[in-house]
Amino acid sequence: MKVAVIGLGLIGGSLLRALAAHGHHVTGFDLAPQTRQAATALARAADVPQFADPSIRPIGIKGAWHVAGTVPAAVEDADVVVLAVPLPALPGVRAELAGFPGLITDVTSVKGPVRDLMAGDRFVGGHPMAGKESSGFLDSDPHLFDDCAWVLCLEPGTTDLADWHTLARLYTSIGARVVPATADDHDRAVARISHVPHLLAAALSNLLDGNPLAGALAAGSFRDGSRVAATRAELIAAMCGGNAPAVRDVLDDVLAELTGYGTVLRSDNPVAGLTPLLRRPGELRRAWPAAAVVPAEVDLDLDALLALGRAGGWVTRAEDRLFGLRPETDRNGS
Amino acid sequence: MKVAVIGLGLIGGSLLRALAAHGHHVTGFDLAPQTRQAATALARAADVPQFADPSIRPIGIKGAWHVAGTVPAAVEDADVVVLAVPLPALPGVRAELAGFPGLITDVTSVKGPVRDLMAGDRFVGGHPMAGKESSGFLDSDPHLFDDCAWVLCLEPGTTDLADWHTLARLYTSIGARVVPATADDHDRAVARISHVPHLLAAALSNLLDGNPLAGALAAGSFRDGSRVAATRAELIAAMCGGNAPAVRDVLDDVLAELTGYGTVLRSDNPVAGLTPLLRRPGELRRAWPAAAVVPAEVDLDLDALLALGRAGGWVTRAEDRLFGLRPETDRNGS
Repeated sequence: MKVAVIGLGLIGGSLLRALAAHGHHVTGFDLAPQTRQAATALARAADVPQFADPSIRPIGIKGAWHVAGTVPAAVEDADVVVLAVPLPALPGVRAELAGFPGLITDVTSVKGPVRDLMAGDRFVGGHPMAGKESSGFLDSDPHLFDDCAWVLCLEPGTTDLADWHTLARLYTSIGARVVPATADDHDRAVARISHVPHLLAAALSNLLDGNPLAGALAAGSFRDGSRVAATRAELIAAMCGGNAPAVRDVLDDVLAELTGYGTVLRSDNPVAGLTPLLRRPGELRRAWPAAAVVPAEVDLDLDALLALGRAGGWVTRAEDRLFGLRPETDRNGS
Repeated sequence: MKVAVIGLGLIGGSLLRALAAHGHHVTGFDLAPQTRQAATALARAADVPQFADPSIRPIGIKGAWHVAGTVPAAVEDADVVVLAVPLPALPGVRAELAGFPGLITDVTSVKGPVRDLMAGDRFVGGHPMAGKESSGFLDSDPHLFDDCAWVLCLEPGTTDLADWHTLARLYTSIGARVVPATADDHDRAVARISHVPHLLAAALSNLLDGNPLAGALAAGSFRDGSRVAATRAELIAAMCGGNAPAVRDVLDDVLAELTGYGTVLRSDNPVAGLTPLLRRPGELRRAWPAAAVVPAEVDLDLDALLALGRAGGWVTRAEDRLFGLRPETDRNGS
């Protein structure tokens, strides 16, 4: 399959390298000349003759890629175009793709607004649940998507699943777990497990302000709880602000929970009051990620795929039928 | 120095093993017979003749320890007793130590209430900033305190610093960084960097409830942000509830910050509104842990030690003078 990746930051750059490593014909483009130069230089390194024996090639690099100088040149003979640009840049790139007959997908962290923006195009929204605090092509990693959950969107009205199927084959081929979900279900879920966690990490990091003693004492719980606050402010703001309706709802839930802890901390016996409140979150965290999974097998069928995703399952192999895993039914009924 | 450790859970067991590994004469006691048996069995393994050459002994184990059957037997000829029992068990153990002439210290995560409880005793409060989600002697680790910040309390009224000095020598000898702080400053600092992070992790873990899709999509930001919620509910409740006044104040600060994010998420341009709010926490997190440290050297002097701790510094070598490190002065003035 011929794939074009537009935008070669951390995600796009990693995807370029992962697709090439798995034998796909892939062409990249980035607006920044220095990024195109870096991607070109690395492609040459991946292609040098002394690495002809795959066993001595740099890890994960089996083949090289092309770097184009413009968007039209990058997508010229592509079957699939992956838009790996930030949300605000999508309308501009979309305009440059006018008349492109192939399949378009994206990797942005919010799916409802992108679904609306791309209405009328041959488009399937996507989102790999992978990232780092760092960004840019120089931090890209061809293994970034190994065992990564990659959401591919389906909507209740979707009748033709062929394009979804094409992308499921493409991403499972590079080792990702493909999760079917509607754009709205995706946006609510990622508010819970990605966007709000970034806001909690920011609020936690702020507690070091003006308190060097706290910084000297901070250990594992602070380190991990605050880690993603080191992400660039612009990226966190774009993720959370782009998904504002879902994020504010989930944030309200968190505020209510924390306010409840605060009320108990003002009571006569805070230890006795807190203990039962902390049991359920402990159970949930110890049960994550799902240790008990069972094989799942479904037809290329809208309702079956959405049911698999809602049950916490995913696809690891896309043939005529789709094969994957889903968590064993929780006997606690949650 | 002869040391007795009362309570051989994760912290006490690790301390028993670390002290023995560094050549101290150490005796342990635990209320649970099965824990005493495990500690005795491991001491025998550490003492077997084929390990006479220190270079082939199990990592970190240079010497063995004794396990006593009662508190009085454990402390019989000790210079220092370390109480490594949970806060609610402290009064009972204190009663068993009536008449003990040596120095007493503890390892509990709250220092104000323990200072009040032990008033009149020859006591210096301590708290190693080390832990895991797991607990118990079987998870103990003689390397748990390598480079760990270990608070040793000093109060404005303290006139004799000899006992503080003794413990600073003991804990720096096993590789810990000793941080001087008042009990109140300690309690406010750990509310920020340990207790409130546990409550945030719990609120975050709760967001998986009834949402298997979110669990399937959760990746690094959820994993790290929620990690410590897996700790036993009783332990988190005891930590936070035992430090309730400081924890609720810090929780109020966090609630105010998160409420501010929520307000911006309801505004016309949440991306533009969030970006400046997220800059300062990003700077703080990227500057932690302090990369730029400078040597610090102080006399055994109350004000000098407390100033070192408040500046985010610590002691790594305790001789007649105390040698350590402190962060370079922050040029941003925070």
